[in-house]
Amino acid sequence: MVTLGELREECGVFGVIGHRDAALLTYYALYALQHRGQESAGIASVRRDWIEARRGMGLVSEVFDDEILGELESDTAIGHVRYSTSGESLLVNAQPIVVRFKHGSLALAHNGNLINAHLLKERLEGEGSIFQTTSDTEVIAHLIARQPWSDLEEAVLAALKEIRGAYGLVIMTKDRLFAARDPHGIRPLVLGRLNGTFVVASETCALETIGAEFVREIEPGELLVIPKEGEVYSLQIDKGEREAFCVFEYIYFARPDSDFRNRNVHLVRKNLGRFLAEDYPVIADVVTGVPDSSISAASGYAEEAKIPYQMGLIKNRYLGRTFIQPTQRLRERGVRLKLNPIKQVVWGKRVVLVDDSIVRGTTAKHIVQLLRLAGAKEVHLRISSPPYRFPCYYGIDTSQASELVAVGRSVEEIREMIGADSLEFLSVKRMVEACGFSYDSFCTACFTGDYPVSLEKRVSLPNDF
Amino acid sequence: MVTLGELREECGVFGVIGHRDAALLTYYALYALQHRGQESAGIASVRRDWIEARRGMGLVSEVFDDEILGELESDTAIGHVRYSTSGESLLVNAQPIVVRFKHGSLALAHNGNLINAHLLKERLEGEGSIFQTTSDTEVIAHLIARQPWSDLEEAVLAALKEIRGAYGLVIMTKDRLFAARDPHGIRPLVLGRLNGTFVVASETCALETIGAEFVREIEPGELLVIPKEGEVYSLQIDKGEREAFCVFEYIYFARPDSDFRNRNVHLVRKNLGRFLAEDYPVIADVVTGVPDSSISAASGYAEEAKIPYQMGLIKNRYLGRTFIQPTQRLRERGVRLKLNPIKQVVWGKRVVLVDDSIVRGTTAKHIVQLLRLAGAKEVHLRISSPPYRFPCYYGIDTSQASELVAVGRSVEEIREMIGADSLEFLSVKRMVEACGFSYDSFCTACFTGDYPVSLEKRVSLPNDF
Amino acid sequence: MVTLGELREECGVFGVIGHRDAALLTYYALYALQHRGQESAGIASVRRDWIEARRGMGLVSEVFDDEILGELESDTAIGHVRYSTSGESLLVNAQPIVVRFKHGSLALAHNGNLINAHLLKERLEGEGSIFQTTSDTEVIAHLIARQPWSDLEEAVLAALKEIRGAYGLVIMTKDRLFAARDPHGIRPLVLGRLNGTFVVASETCALETIGAEFVREIEPGELLVIPKEGEVYSLQIDKGEREAFCVFEYIYFARPDSDFRNRNVHLVRKNLGRFLAEDYPVIADVVTGVPDSSISAASGYAEEAKIPYQMGLIKNRYLGRTFIQPTQRLRERGVRLKLNPIKQVVWGKRVVLVDDSIVRGTTAKHIVQLLRLAGAKEVHLRISSPPYRFPCYYGIDTSQASELVAVGRSVEEIREMIGADSLEFLSVKRMVEACGFSYDSFCTACFTGDYPVSLEKRVSLPNDF
Amino acid sequence: MVTLGELREECGVFGVIGHRDAALLTYYALYALQHRGQESAGIASVRRDWIEARRGMGLVSEVFDDEILGELESDTAIGHVRYSTSGESLLVNAQPIVVRFKHGSLALAHNGNLINAHLLKERLEGEGSIFQTTSDTEVIAHLIARQPWSDLEEAVLAALKEIRGAYGLVIMTKDRLFAARDPHGIRPLVLGRLNGTFVVASETCALETIGAEFVREIEPGELLVIPKEGEVYSLQIDKGEREAFCVFEYIYFARPDSDFRNRNVHLVRKNLGRFLAEDYPVIADVVTGVPDSSISAASGYAEEAKIPYQMGLIKNRYLGRTFIQPTQRLRERGVRLKLNPIKQVVWGKRVVLVDDSIVRGTTAKHIVQLLRLAGAKEVHLRISSPPYRFPCYYGIDTSQASELVAVGRSVEEIREMIGADSLEFLSVKRMVEACGFSYDSFCTACFTGDYPVSLEKRVSLPNDF
Repeated sequence: MVTLGELREECGVFGVIGHRDAALLTYYALYALQHRGQESAGIASVRRDWIEARRGMGLVSEVFDDEILGELESDTAIGHVRYSTSGESLLVNAQPIVVRFKHGSLALAHNGNLINAHLLKERLEGEGSIFQTTSDTEVIAHLIARQPWSDLEEAVLAALKEIRGAYGLVIMTKDRLFAARDPHGIRPLVLGRLNGTFVVASETCALETIGAEFVREIEPGELLVIPKEGEVYSLQIDKGEREAFCVFEYIYFARPDSDFRNRNVHLVRKNLGRFLAEDYPVIADVVTGVPDSSISAASGYAEEAKIPYQMGLIKNRYLGRTFIQPTQRLRERGVRLKLNPIKQVVWGKRVVLVDDSIVRGTTAKHIVQLLRLAGAKEVHLRISSPPYRFPCYYGIDTSQASELVAVGRSVEEIREMIGADSLEFLSVKRMVEACGFSYDSFCTACFTGDYPVSLEKRVSLPNDF
Repeated sequence: MVTLGELREECGVFGVIGHRDAALLTYYALYALQHRGQESAGIASVRRDWIEARRGMGLVSEVFDDEILGELESDTAIGHVRYSTSGESLLVNAQPIVVRFKHGSLALAHNGNLINAHLLKERLEGEGSIFQTTSDTEVIAHLIARQPWSDLEEAVLAALKEIRGAYGLVIMTKDRLFAARDPHGIRPLVLGRLNGTFVVASETCALETIGAEFVREIEPGELLVIPKEGEVYSLQIDKGEREAFCVFEYIYFARPDSDFRNRNVHLVRKNLGRFLAEDYPVIADVVTGVPDSSISAASGYAEEAKIPYQMGLIKNRYLGRTFIQPTQRLRERGVRLKLNPIKQVVWGKRVVLVDDSIVRGTTAKHIVQLLRLAGAKEVHLRISSPPYRFPCYYGIDTSQASELVAVGRSVEEIREMIGADSLEFLSVKRMVEACGFSYDSFCTACFTGDYPVSLEKRVSLPNDF
Repeated sequence: MVTLGELREECGVFGVIGHRDAALLTYYALYALQHRGQESAGIASVRRDWIEARRGMGLVSEVFDDEILGELESDTAIGHVRYSTSGESLLVNAQPIVVRFKHGSLALAHNGNLINAHLLKERLEGEGSIFQTTSDTEVIAHLIARQPWSDLEEAVLAALKEIRGAYGLVIMTKDRLFAARDPHGIRPLVLGRLNGTFVVASETCALETIGAEFVREIEPGELLVIPKEGEVYSLQIDKGEREAFCVFEYIYFARPDSDFRNRNVHLVRKNLGRFLAEDYPVIADVVTGVPDSSISAASGYAEEAKIPYQMGLIKNRYLGRTFIQPTQRLRERGVRLKLNPIKQVVWGKRVVLVDDSIVRGTTAKHIVQLLRLAGAKEVHLRISSPPYRFPCYYGIDTSQASELVAVGRSVEEIREMIGADSLEFLSVKRMVEACGFSYDSFCTACFTGDYPVSLEKRVSLPNDF
Repeated sequence: MVTLGELREECGVFGVIGHRDAALLTYYALYALQHRGQESAGIASVRRDWIEARRGMGLVSEVFDDEILGELESDTAIGHVRYSTSGESLLVNAQPIVVRFKHGSLALAHNGNLINAHLLKERLEGEGSIFQTTSDTEVIAHLIARQPWSDLEEAVLAALKEIRGAYGLVIMTKDRLFAARDPHGIRPLVLGRLNGTFVVASETCALETIGAEFVREIEPGELLVIPKEGEVYSLQIDKGEREAFCVFEYIYFARPDSDFRNRNVHLVRKNLGRFLAEDYPVIADVVTGVPDSSISAASGYAEEAKIPYQMGLIKNRYLGRTFIQPTQRLRERGVRLKLNPIKQVVWGKRVVLVDDSIVRGTTAKHIVQLLRLAGAKEVHLRISSPPYRFPCYYGIDTSQASELVAVGRSVEEIREMIGADSLEFLSVKRMVEACGFSYDSFCTACFTGDYPVSLEKRVSLPNDF
């Protein structure tokens, strides 16, 4: 299990054009994408001739109500849920952002992270630009506005050619929707169709939710233009780069009912569990997974190993953002809210505990302790991905490599730290195999250090903003 | 799956005496009991010499924050989460209720339903009582106040002898906690110990959450008195009645990590699924369960039937109370938020769908349709309980028997209505067997019509309150 | 000026029967009565066959919105704004209270204070009553419910005969409105007519606001019955007691545009100022009043004294309940928000400062300092009422006689404490004369100790509720 | 009386540097300036090395609480209250705005209106700028960022030389405060000193409130630089232009306890009333003013005319932004909340009604009707300013000249429309005389059409933002 404190989630984006329930559909789609970001939510829509946006901190259900949606109703809208990957946790950083410039008005919603954002910012500031947020998205807006082209499409394309990094991007004007994916296809973005109108979303589960039909994924390096009237067409941002889809989307980020490359996430995860059982069998009485993200892998492990799968841990679903954390004293006395073991399932048993990844190792250590206190005789930890050893610069906030438990530690040393009876990680080769595509088609940098983009010097954001 | 519209949940109660973090512990315990009621939450605590209470509509996380808890901090507190079983959805009906009367002040938190509440109310009104809520709990408070006894303990005992129905009740004074369970033990109530102090709760999961040790269940008909200083002792409300624990606690209400009668709820549910597979096998490719309450039974079925268990349906966890329901037009166009099928799991497959119960049948029908639209070749519905045919007067809001799909319909007729390829229910005999106790020890009235309490004429609440 | 900390305000009540905009009219009337209570606001109305109520802490504008009012709309409603005179500041004490009892349902809204509430409560508790609030209003509800009469009207009348103290009371059933005033007429209550339907209110300004015509005051000791259909008629609670209208309504409580006994409050206050100028002239350059309540008296003084009236002090109108008080350090450094002097008005001037009353003396002292710091050469304080020396048991929270600056101090000692160059109070005789009615018709107990009701032993509320 | 619907208010700005309670002082200062804008409020402060801002819709008391202020605490802060003069009513337009650019970070708070904003915006957009708000303040930020100067001070000065219009502007960096006033001095801005540190504010009442001493006004065309360490010094934006202070600040905008040019606003208003009485006497029984802004002028009239001043109209102080307006039906039936006449003051009387200005005429008409319905025998309307005939482009939203009642109407025609028995306006000459300064030193354009700035073509904001 990757907790918020260990690995922060991605953002989710959505766009629809030419549907009379555009804002409401966006609202529903954001519910389906909520797992990708719970920090802020926003919807921008075209109202008469201008663009109106509402953004707020918190969940979709906290930001929007009937009245607000009524004010946004239109036939074109984009939406965003955010978990901060860059920029601080401030309302001012909530998306979509709306800007007015020489070509009119624009709304942008962005999932991903630019690795040359800081360099671009310095250059833009040198040219007299002002920044009102700390998000990368504003950099893209400036780049578009600065292009000499008189045509907006040219300007967007030229701007995208300047940025480096990972992105699934949706841009809205009053009569067009742009959908763009980075040249490596690191971040996902899919196209759907709903009664003759087009929608774009970070995951297919958003299409399912609103009753839209999946058409295809936006191609790596593709800039898709969807006019309100007329045919959809594609422009190419860049080519020749190898595809490098983030393998972590399969492992942890995405919702189990989403598909990428026509492979279902739940089934991929189950496969990961199966392979794990094949490669690292153990004699045990029960297999259990860390809810929710590791349930699929755990049931795959159980099936392959022919050991009964049990619900060994219960996750409390009611802990909101405002939840008051137990004090140290109460934690020491056993107050535990997030996860509770089922004693009768683990008492006196040899338990295989399946988790999807280990980042800092603190959660894994905590869970192993929980199981032992609940009477587990043995706890064998099986991780359905390789050791996480390298920082991700494309949208996962583990920039501080020093906190990664697998850096500079052998598997045995990690096992000892966590306190499990045994610990095994799926190998990179087998992980890729379980996903069903070639190593070359993935970004596995966090496991291998093999970064798909040659990293220019990435300067972390200065504090003086 | 029993949805809110079909079968409303129970309440949850908790009490602690003599612990310096009493209000905070109650807050954590209510998080653990939140599944028993999401309509309102409340905590009452002893402050200096009086009782202070805070109640609000919504989840624990919505009602309480740091500041409010600070104002409630004390060494004695009780709490309540409510899903309306009687009384309307108004703040005035939120519990605990606090009253002042001749013996001082009292706070009451009540899970259950009195079947003679209306008769008692009429009598009390005739004697000059006034009612400010529509909840049964206020009736109990009046009864206590009306007793001629000069001793509070005698008064509480005498009052409880007058009430009929199901209850798990916690009463707090400034120096005592009372915990009472109805003579049949229909509603659950357990006793725990935490560093030398006592706590009571509706379910053991609340004990686990706060690090308390399980001591025993409150006995049917027992009135336990826990003084702040001195020994705990028991009084008997009534005896000679047979035990009749609500079997639906095992089937649906309780959290999987709770135990009743030393049997774990998840394991009982898995057993129910196993028995279902033994009794009603079917040739199929995949078994899936309706999240969250039927997952245990479904995995039991899968194991017994040796058919792979898959996550076939995803539940959206972010739909709050303020969620804007899709319009009819959008629903027709396929907007579906609550549950989404995983196409790749069910496409072209023969699916066994396991659910815990069918009440109105509308949800089951909806899910079968979802699976068919997602490409399931066959859908075999297996219910881990018998047909629900009789109204429950003890706390489950299915008073309108006419809405129960199983009333006046054969299994075949229900199957046809729901649109499944086959439909089977676990029999009463086997359900009881799977639970591991004798038929005589359960209330199975909703399945059998065999009510443990001879029902006096139950007059539904008049509208003129 | 009497500040919240010195003398707490009264409550305001309103009722209307048989008008299709009943809830909305009540809402507007409460705005007009808001000066009588800013702690909580509530409206109860008859919906179909039962009574619905909404109450909340704060101002009318904070408690009610379009949606809530929509839910309350009906043809009969009562409302209440509260400033705690008895009972603590809790939502549970907000009014109207709604109770159900043998005669059906009842809503009560009460302005005033019962002096035998505690004795009645003890008796009722002895008879088995329970109390859920600390307000006197609940006592009245219990008394009504306890009457043996089968007729509600008889029961209300009999209950009112049992209570002692000051009240302006509105009671609503589904087909009747009762309006009652204490036998001495201490608290005000007026009757109005609006297009053939009747309304009752604490002050005439509420009638003006909703476009109703003033009919007459409810008589002291009168219980007026206003059926939805049929003629209005009166019953007599008690007789033979002398009238004793609270003179403080004229001096401070009421809104300047209200009339009592056909005399306008602003004009009475101006008279008080005039008499003050006649009795206590002083050679000065400018007259100023403490906003808002002393402006009328100050302009009366100025006119009579032929000294120019100036706005010498500005009151900040934006300080809400949540306003963050300056720390001691900031206060010492001169941070002053509530009142600001106009330097150019007072600099180098001999100032006559007119205030309506002095209770604790702290505010007066503060204002005199403000004026001196702003450069006033002399500050002559003139109070348009006599020294406040006796506690009020009928609704003004000055129960702690020890805090009254005039207790045990001569006028010269008070002057010294406050730091004014001279200080004069209007005499009781002249105050009464300025109001235009005989001494015998007023309650002047806070000035004279001459209580109109023989006070039974008044036991202050115990702390163990 | 100028109501919100007729003439919208100004903004208020404040800044403090080098005081450890900077945010708290700003909070208190904004309370004192709240009358200048109730739409939104904001505070920006220097935290460690960056600038943090909190802005919200509503009153200061609605936007800020203890916690938020705690997060803003620092030794340097600026604040803003806004009533939209340009830009729509959106949170995004709330100030202060914070931008990051090549020189670091900047916060800006601006009172006033640029008349060449649209031209500048077009130019900036042509150069590739993006706009995220519709406020003029963002234009100023862009202009500063676009300057070629390597020194921030030079850049600010150069930017200010490019703008035309009215402004009182406060700019904050982490170590400096800039305070600038437009070359004509149309908008006010004053300098104060507080224990050795400097503060700037729109009005002196903010200085009084926080205990600061008035130093002097910022000069027209002055850019004052206040470093955190070191001496204060001035730069000149422009010179040679005549001073043109907005006479409406005296007449209506400012708080009565503020001074401009060392003359107190209340006293100026009283003078205006006196002159009105001299020039337009009338035989009458009573003089009354429209609360709150016309009270001073009315009492001046009364004194000069030797006719008693009375409070003839009561203003309801509790109508917040969320107040539900009476329906047309209720208005017709006499529901009136904002203003209520005192019948006993006006019944049968010849009334002089003093108001500060007439813009659309609808309020004046309404008040004359109110007085007649309350029984006034005659209503003589006296306005303490000349007829308002020309649009103001410097910050008062009367851009739609067609709505001004005085455009194309003689005084007699206005009188007829309003329904008064007589109507007189103070002349421009006498108004200026009453204020105590020469005609040349004021902007009186709204009365005379004599605009101090040669207006470039002012294009109203397009709708396509």
